Amino acid sequence: MDTVSESNVYSKTCPTRELLDGIADKWTTLVIGILSDAPAPVRFGELRRAIQGISQKMLTQTLRDLERNGLVVRTVYPVIPPRVEYSLTPLGRTLDEPLRALAIWAQEHLPQVRAAQQAFDARGPVQSNPAA
Amino acid sequence: MDTVSESNVYSKTCPTRELLDGIADKWTTLVIGILSDAPAPVRFGELRRAIQGISQKMLTQTLRDLERNGLVVRTVYPVIPPRVEYSLTPLGRTLDEPLRALAIWAQEHLPQVRAAQQAFDARGPVQSNPAA
Repeated sequence: MDTVSESNVYSKTCPTRELLDGIADKWTTLVIGILSDAPAPVRFGELRRAIQGISQKMLTQTLRDLERNGLVVRTVYPVIPPRVEYSLTPLGRTLDEPLRALAIWAQEHLPQVRAAQQAFDARGPVQSNPAA
Repeated sequence: MDTVSESNVYSKTCPTRELLDGIADKWTTLVIGILSDAPAPVRFGELRRAIQGISQKMLTQTLRDLERNGLVVRTVYPVIPPRVEYSLTPLGRTLDEPLRALAIWAQEHLPQVRAAQQAFDARGPVQSNPAA
């Protein structure tokens, strides 16, 4: 139990939990993965095309949160129309590895998870007190 | 760009993304951390007390999703009142490491993130096209 008792993410008032809530997120994982792999800063429209199905509003909010948390730099070039590019900060680069490990886990274990889901769904409604 | 182009989590229709959505989650991270550290199966009430601030409904839903995904085993003992215990499956144990890495990242980098947040908030409203 050592790690749990040392960890304060289990405390309601600890700001680490709020941060965990902000980074343990599907869109954050996808955005950071793209920025980490890109050889150069990435434009908003490129991100939106790369992440199929993300809405403009959700991408804007995700990028804003990443910028506020110091993980992403937003650079605005004073041209018309303005060109806005995003890249990872050194801090953001440190988050790539744990998030990527999570995405790789999902890819590698999807068959096992789907088999479990099918077995669960085939069982029907949960019995709270099955006869032994 | 290799990893991203091989990864299909960027495709809207890929079920891996749905799975990533289910595991990249604050409550999932906290529940799996507790079950991984516990030397024996854990009762619902123990989980609820350990994760301060989680509602009964949210914990129930989180555990049900974990069970459906094959990550957690729910054992009901036919006693009165019924005793219900949760433990990780072997598959669930494989998810502990990447989720724990994420929680550790949050703990270790919180000071840097908070400093970035304060600097961001001090800047005031974002200018979309600041004069150079």
